[in-house]
Amino acid sequence: MNGLRSTEIASSLLATDFYQLTMLHAYREAGLHERASFEFFFRRLPPTRGFLVAAGLEILLEKLETAQFSQAELDWLRSTGRFPESFVNDLAGWRFTGDVHAVSEGTIIFQNEPIIRIEAPICEAQLVETLTINFLHYQTLVASKAARCVLAAPQARLIDFGLRRAHSLEAGLYAARAAYVAGFSGTASVHAGAAFGIPVYGTMAHSFIQAHDDESRAFLDFARARPDDTIFLIDTYDTEAGARIVAAIADKLRQLGIPVRGVRIDSGDLAAHACAVRKILDESGLSVTRIIASGGLDEWKLRDLVAQGAPIDTYGIGTSLTTSEDVPMLDCAYKLVEYGGVPKQKRSEGKVLWPGSKQVFRQYDSSGCLERDILGLAGEKLEGEPLLWPVMRDGRAELMTLDANRKRTQRGLQSLPHRLRDLGTPSDYPVEISDGLLRLAAELAKHGR
Amino acid sequence: MNGLRSTEIASSLLATDFYQLTMLHAYREAGLHERASFEFFFRRLPPTRGFLVAAGLEILLEKLETAQFSQAELDWLRSTGRFPESFVNDLAGWRFTGDVHAVSEGTIIFQNEPIIRIEAPICEAQLVETLTINFLHYQTLVASKAARCVLAAPQARLIDFGLRRAHSLEAGLYAARAAYVAGFSGTASVHAGAAFGIPVYGTMAHSFIQAHDDESRAFLDFARARPDDTIFLIDTYDTEAGARIVAAIADKLRQLGIPVRGVRIDSGDLAAHACAVRKILDESGLSVTRIIASGGLDEWKLRDLVAQGAPIDTYGIGTSLTTSEDVPMLDCAYKLVEYGGVPKQKRSEGKVLWPGSKQVFRQYDSSGCLERDILGLAGEKLEGEPLLWPVMRDGRAELMTLDANRKRTQRGLQSLPHRLRDLGTPSDYPVEISDGLLRLAAELAKHGR
Repeated sequence: MNGLRSTEIASSLLATDFYQLTMLHAYREAGLHERASFEFFFRRLPPTRGFLVAAGLEILLEKLETAQFSQAELDWLRSTGRFPESFVNDLAGWRFTGDVHAVSEGTIIFQNEPIIRIEAPICEAQLVETLTINFLHYQTLVASKAARCVLAAPQARLIDFGLRRAHSLEAGLYAARAAYVAGFSGTASVHAGAAFGIPVYGTMAHSFIQAHDDESRAFLDFARARPDDTIFLIDTYDTEAGARIVAAIADKLRQLGIPVRGVRIDSGDLAAHACAVRKILDESGLSVTRIIASGGLDEWKLRDLVAQGAPIDTYGIGTSLTTSEDVPMLDCAYKLVEYGGVPKQKRSEGKVLWPGSKQVFRQYDSSGCLERDILGLAGEKLEGEPLLWPVMRDGRAELMTLDANRKRTQRGLQSLPHRLRDLGTPSDYPVEISDGLLRLAAELAKHGR
Repeated sequence: MNGLRSTEIASSLLATDFYQLTMLHAYREAGLHERASFEFFFRRLPPTRGFLVAAGLEILLEKLETAQFSQAELDWLRSTGRFPESFVNDLAGWRFTGDVHAVSEGTIIFQNEPIIRIEAPICEAQLVETLTINFLHYQTLVASKAARCVLAAPQARLIDFGLRRAHSLEAGLYAARAAYVAGFSGTASVHAGAAFGIPVYGTMAHSFIQAHDDESRAFLDFARARPDDTIFLIDTYDTEAGARIVAAIADKLRQLGIPVRGVRIDSGDLAAHACAVRKILDESGLSVTRIIASGGLDEWKLRDLVAQGAPIDTYGIGTSLTTSEDVPMLDCAYKLVEYGGVPKQKRSEGKVLWPGSKQVFRQYDSSGCLERDILGLAGEKLEGEPLLWPVMRDGRAELMTLDANRKRTQRGLQSLPHRLRDLGTPSDYPVEISDGLLRLAAELAKHGR
């Protein structure tokens, strides 16, 4: 460490690309201070994502409301000698004062649909690019993965177990939240409970068993200390033997007034073990004792376990969730669409973008299923439900509750056509371009801009 | 938000699995306070990783030195009603006072090799499991990916461009550091410069060009404001046209005493564009102007561009680096290997582990290349270079400089046998088990523990 403390600076305004600062400096020197509109969207969906679930907005809005440079950060910037004093002094007064339109968290979204539009003086809208992408990309990634797990095992309780291999503790925090928005019942991550009020669950680790001389003693010690948390990890040495040990101590626990809430299986053939363990528990009068499974699970394995009728009540989903293991990134961009009231369009090869401030109009069929979306201009009056709403004005946000976002995902998943619910079918959902937007794009192309 | 502020809590001691706290409580109630040894290791290498580069240790040690619960965190724990007052009061005094042996950052490592051994009273060694895995897993993941990029383009300058799609701003911070340890020249992430003194680089974004009415004007505005940072982004509309615009304004800039340091290409066929642009620049007397390429690059694309002889001086590597896109997680574990002086071994199906406190002994061939590693007991005296060293005693760390870690990777990559440098060949590196370790494992198996 030869600078600011990494924990303090990790999510500061210095958590940005250096070019944001050089551009701010150059905008200032060139006198470019007009209002700009930037939109963030996902370019196309990967083959194994029939849809995405928007997430991360409220975390972003909270950040935009409060972001400013600290004295230590400004001192460090000065010390680099790469910016004139007057520019750094200006940064001391930097605040986000813009307006934001966005798609609510938990909304089902598709390719090319802006999920946020940020309108502000260009120096504000430019500087927040990195953090806007960072927050919305990752949380949408995890919410979309989590929604697939929910579709794969709709009757089960799903818990996020993925903090340890998330790409940072902060990633684990936001993953827990995104998974909850998407329909998970809770998380093992304590900080997510503290920050967001998400239900926190936990069992025990193999080390707890190993630190004892025998399993039976370990289970009893745990039950006496944590009578409300009696979920015993039974696979440290032999899963079925572990289940029999639980059955053997159940009477003793009952006398102490302690129920056996559950057992957890973390290795081997989960379906086979769950069947054998269920039988052992049932034969011992422990039919209300739940079976929790974990260990390398993802939506495909959930689907298979459900198809096999495995008697598993709760699944702990870890690394595959918090890293979105099969698809750890989505193609997305934050692009200038308007500057000083003039629509803008970038035309780099293979990356054509739609210009101007836009709106998404969603149309449903008679059964309430998603039918098509129309990508139009913000000013157009088109048929359908507009997805972008004002969520921040002059830098002040209107926040939703986490539960409202969670309910929105639930409704969204119910409105998905069957083909889009399938885990392996690429999305063919139509996002059509409005006449107004087509005309604007053609006009700009004619003028080479 | 209905709790503690997420930014403050993201990397607090509450960033842990709930079961760590319930186990601490149960250890306390059961009177289990003996010293425990835990080891962290990667189980096996993915097919596209011939080796791994250990990273993250010093970040972890700094965390262990300073970690404690804040008053607000303890108050929140109390408010949950899930722990007795006396236990929460105990947590107020929780500090890490243990000893740590570890493999230095930048060391080449292989399957089953402990890269850290944490010895402490079990309540300390247990609680730090989640953060130990979190820090070491992610940073080793990124350093290993970065080292592959270095091997693919050994003559080029490589810069981390991946903050925006890293899985959180904190992930981006640590990714920049891990990539630097592995041989990258720097990063675009400002916070990584502020926290670790890593060289920070930057160019300009498409929005800067688009905010102007024409490219020429945008380049001039930027150059006047940032005469030391003249790397022009030339692909907003047409790459070769952009290069010709740069050539056209070079004279004017020269008169102002401003050199044209470079141009950046971010889309299309990078090799073809680089050749055409190189020609345009050379013909305009800009032969010292560098070409920077970015946009969806990874080690495979680097290898192809180098093989094609693309005249590219610097590569910006983004998402593929910070998400380790092809392999976003490594199979790894933090396991109890000794408790109260007694070796321990977990035997869950398909997950057999080596018991006891261990050491890795590395043997080189006559040309200085890695030949084999021996996994032995910490007390054994075996031939070879021991990889684990004492790095923390009684909770106080001895830290290395970042540059020492970076040099270690450089030496390590030079000592890799040719077959392990190949991007597509799975590792066949021998990690042999010592006789002493085999005997101990057999003995424990005999007693069923």
